[in-house]
Amino acid sequence: MNEFELIARLTRALPVNPSVVVGAGDDCAVLDGGRPGHYLLLKTDAVVQGVHFTAAATPEQIGHKALARCLSDIAAMAGQPLAALVTVALPTDFKPDEVERIYAGINGLAQRYGVAIVGGETTSNPERLLLSVAVLGEVARDKCILRSGAKEGDALFVSGELGGSRAGKHLEFEPRLAEAQWLAANFSIHAMIDLSDGLAGDLPHILQRSGVGAELLAQAIPISRAAKLQARSESSAKPPLLAALGDGEDFELLFAAPSRQAVPLLDGWKKQFPRVRLSCIGRITKGHGVKLRDKTGLHSLKTHGYVHFA
Amino acid sequence: MNEFELIARLTRALPVNPSVVVGAGDDCAVLDGGRPGHYLLLKTDAVVQGVHFTAAATPEQIGHKALARCLSDIAAMAGQPLAALVTVALPTDFKPDEVERIYAGINGLAQRYGVAIVGGETTSNPERLLLSVAVLGEVARDKCILRSGAKEGDALFVSGELGGSRAGKHLEFEPRLAEAQWLAANFSIHAMIDLSDGLAGDLPHILQRSGVGAELLAQAIPISRAAKLQARSESSAKPPLLAALGDGEDFELLFAAPSRQAVPLLDGWKKQFPRVRLSCIGRITKGHGVKLRDKTGLHSLKTHGYVHFA
Repeated sequence: MNEFELIARLTRALPVNPSVVVGAGDDCAVLDGGRPGHYLLLKTDAVVQGVHFTAAATPEQIGHKALARCLSDIAAMAGQPLAALVTVALPTDFKPDEVERIYAGINGLAQRYGVAIVGGETTSNPERLLLSVAVLGEVARDKCILRSGAKEGDALFVSGELGGSRAGKHLEFEPRLAEAQWLAANFSIHAMIDLSDGLAGDLPHILQRSGVGAELLAQAIPISRAAKLQARSESSAKPPLLAALGDGEDFELLFAAPSRQAVPLLDGWKKQFPRVRLSCIGRITKGHGVKLRDKTGLHSLKTHGYVHFA
Repeated sequence: MNEFELIARLTRALPVNPSVVVGAGDDCAVLDGGRPGHYLLLKTDAVVQGVHFTAAATPEQIGHKALARCLSDIAAMAGQPLAALVTVALPTDFKPDEVERIYAGINGLAQRYGVAIVGGETTSNPERLLLSVAVLGEVARDKCILRSGAKEGDALFVSGELGGSRAGKHLEFEPRLAEAQWLAANFSIHAMIDLSDGLAGDLPHILQRSGVGAELLAQAIPISRAAKLQARSESSAKPPLLAALGDGEDFELLFAAPSRQAVPLLDGWKKQFPRVRLSCIGRITKGHGVKLRDKTGLHSLKTHGYVHFA
């Protein structure tokens, strides 16, 4: 049983109450906190030494990544993060100055996006460092973007470039908060998700929640320089396209919008975010599953993305 | 450097924003989420195998404890928990049915108190099980009880009985949500905290935030049966009074209220919660620090409570 299967089994019968708008199964939980016209967003995520980062990562990078992952999920709902809490579980040989450097990474990112850090717990996890972050955000009700609204005929877009994130990007990425808020303010975005498990792993989440399928154009998928370099320098490396589809930890936005908005959206984005690539990579179709069109024809995409538990 | 010193150092310069009413340093963070007359409460907490529970704990108990600790912090603000997120970090040899039993413990407790479980992440922590829980709650602005309002002359109360929690109570305690909400609705509670690090460890948090001291009456401190039994059966066990002062993990409410309310408060509590003891254990004084009065006179209390990091 992998991570997805286990979560699916666990989330079948979770307790709910009237405050829940969207429970488990989207990038964030969506809650009605009683503020007219607004929803609350709630997200928690953990990073673990040896799983999400190695000993080569600096404490600042580890702190940055732990918070940035949660902010990326807030971005996927087009929300604004308000406040975060941090639990640091320290190995036996921890040094206080390393903890302070972790917080420097957290605090720097938080300050750039106006996020308050409202508490910190430390505990012990003798063998390895683990950080767990919880973030509270908010979003206007009519701007909140779920995974579940994709419609047949929608164009599919992805920000940035995909693949090879573990060469460095996964420790230093900036969450696409401004981009997502701009999208929600200016276009009818039907569905959105942040890419943590790879395009091939995360696109199916949109498709399943929306009851649709998708067709991707192989040549339109933006492949990162890191993925290309890896393919060239390591004989065992996977082809760049497979890296872009399956590597994971991209933390880019994947979203579906009506195809008639494709041109103004691409044009507007280029003016607003000239340094961030935006690619139209395919379209939403009837049916289910992901198909990939390349020079040789149309293929069923079986790549499973990155499964943390594998 | 112990846990308290490290947290104190880290929380000196955390980023804030206008939504923050109370940041790090109380039982929960208090946020203004824009709902008129209400505040949001945010809390996260982790339990770690070998630190907060042993291999003897059942999966249901572990799940219960992880959520109950956070709910106890919501109770300490007289709040109502709305929703919780759970991160389960699983050791290499995890079994899916154990994870389901952990969730059974979480879900049972959540249902009793109307808490929605709105998401669950699983990740890997190869050597030991770790659960991190984040809880969002709410409280009416005029009913929110902080640590900081204790005043000279206030009477000090504690719910339940103290000490010996590790004999079993720490895995099965019920958070004092109903009791705290009843207190806030019917009395002027000046300051409150939940006891996780022992009376001697947690009372100083109220005193420091309120700028006052306290005098405890040794004979008024309610000592649990477990603490008394331990003292009798183990020659190396500490005296019961010291166990009640320092054992930790009691998860009872400690609060300060005007002394003129002491009699109606004790009477009302007995009617409302006949099965939960309430004890007036001393009073708030000028100055700082905790003094303990016993048959031999007045002593400075040096016991440091339970420091997770020791």
